[in-house]
Amino acid sequence: MWQNSVMKNIDCIATLINHFTKLQGVGYKTAERFAYQIIESDMDFVKSFSNAMICAKENVKLCRTCGNFSVEENCGICERRADNKTICVVRDPRDAMAIEKSGAFVGKYHVLHGVISPLNKKGPNDLNLKSLITRVRDENIEEVIIATNPDVEGEATASYIAALIKPSGVKVTRLAQGLAMGAYIEYVDEVTIGAAISNRVII
Amino acid sequence: MWQNSVMKNIDCIATLINHFTKLQGVGYKTAERFAYQIIESDMDFVKSFSNAMICAKENVKLCRTCGNFSVEENCGICERRADNKTICVVRDPRDAMAIEKSGAFVGKYHVLHGVISPLNKKGPNDLNLKSLITRVRDENIEEVIIATNPDVEGEATASYIAALIKPSGVKVTRLAQGLAMGAYIEYVDEVTIGAAISNRVII
Repeated sequence: MWQNSVMKNIDCIATLINHFTKLQGVGYKTAERFAYQIIESDMDFVKSFSNAMICAKENVKLCRTCGNFSVEENCGICERRADNKTICVVRDPRDAMAIEKSGAFVGKYHVLHGVISPLNKKGPNDLNLKSLITRVRDENIEEVIIATNPDVEGEATASYIAALIKPSGVKVTRLAQGLAMGAYIEYVDEVTIGAAISNRVII
Repeated sequence: MWQNSVMKNIDCIATLINHFTKLQGVGYKTAERFAYQIIESDMDFVKSFSNAMICAKENVKLCRTCGNFSVEENCGICERRADNKTICVVRDPRDAMAIEKSGAFVGKYHVLHGVISPLNKKGPNDLNLKSLITRVRDENIEEVIIATNPDVEGEATASYIAALIKPSGVKVTRLAQGLAMGAYIEYVDEVTIGAAISNRVII
């Protein structure tokens, strides 16, 4: 078989395919396609791709304050919005980016790097939670918006954080649940419709 | 917006995401996910991934004889099967690999690196075709199996190649069309059912 005989000569391809399969959601066929595309690309592109990986890995750290990705000790958001009194708690940097892109929030973030998930053996101590309590106190925070996903683990994490912060008298809120833009009511699940009705707004 | 302000600081992430979006079928969201995964991986993994790219690009060339990927001047298949009298013509190295994996073919390959496609401005001269004619003659080939895809462009390419080779008296064949393993006849398209009936075999 080619894979067994010739592939020994073309270890490079096999190694590259193998690395691509490590990316989330990439199976063998897709990894093969990516690897062949790399081989067929310009050397310049491959070099800059390869450098971009190393550059990102070497330079991007976690912000000491909020846990978001940053090239400095503190990320740009933490610095520019230092006086803001609202913290939005998210699961990971991607969620922070999604919220930031919406333009609907101009406060600071706090990235948990996970959610409470007994099945994955992740408890509150595995999350970036301790510094949240300190921040709420030291930065005179007035509101904590918990923006974890509206699923079982996200809800459990939200309840846990709420119970932790509420005693200090700080307002704790959760992202609203309801219809997504462009949704078809006939296809929307019961829980979401229930939430949309309970949280209905006057027009 | 984060993308515009902070991202200037985190050029590395933006650059990496941008490179991932260049992979076929990878959109911005997926590229973002890949990039974040790279940042969150071990430095060792990122370094070996990065090296694998360069290694593959630097070492993998096209076989001088068949046009398949190879680290030597001639690929392993061309060398080991030099005496074989059958050539299987495929569109690209991936197709050769798929056929090789099936174990049903033990002859040599010839990789066209494309198919005739007027819409994409690809004519016969843009394919690795000239050397096929030479090979058929010089290697005393007895059969040419044309294994291009059973779509319009693949069929056109097959007809073109057949017309080119047949005058030399060499047998030219095409992969059979019919039901795929595990197919449900009720969902199979008319053309395929037609082909399966015309090409029916005695049991």
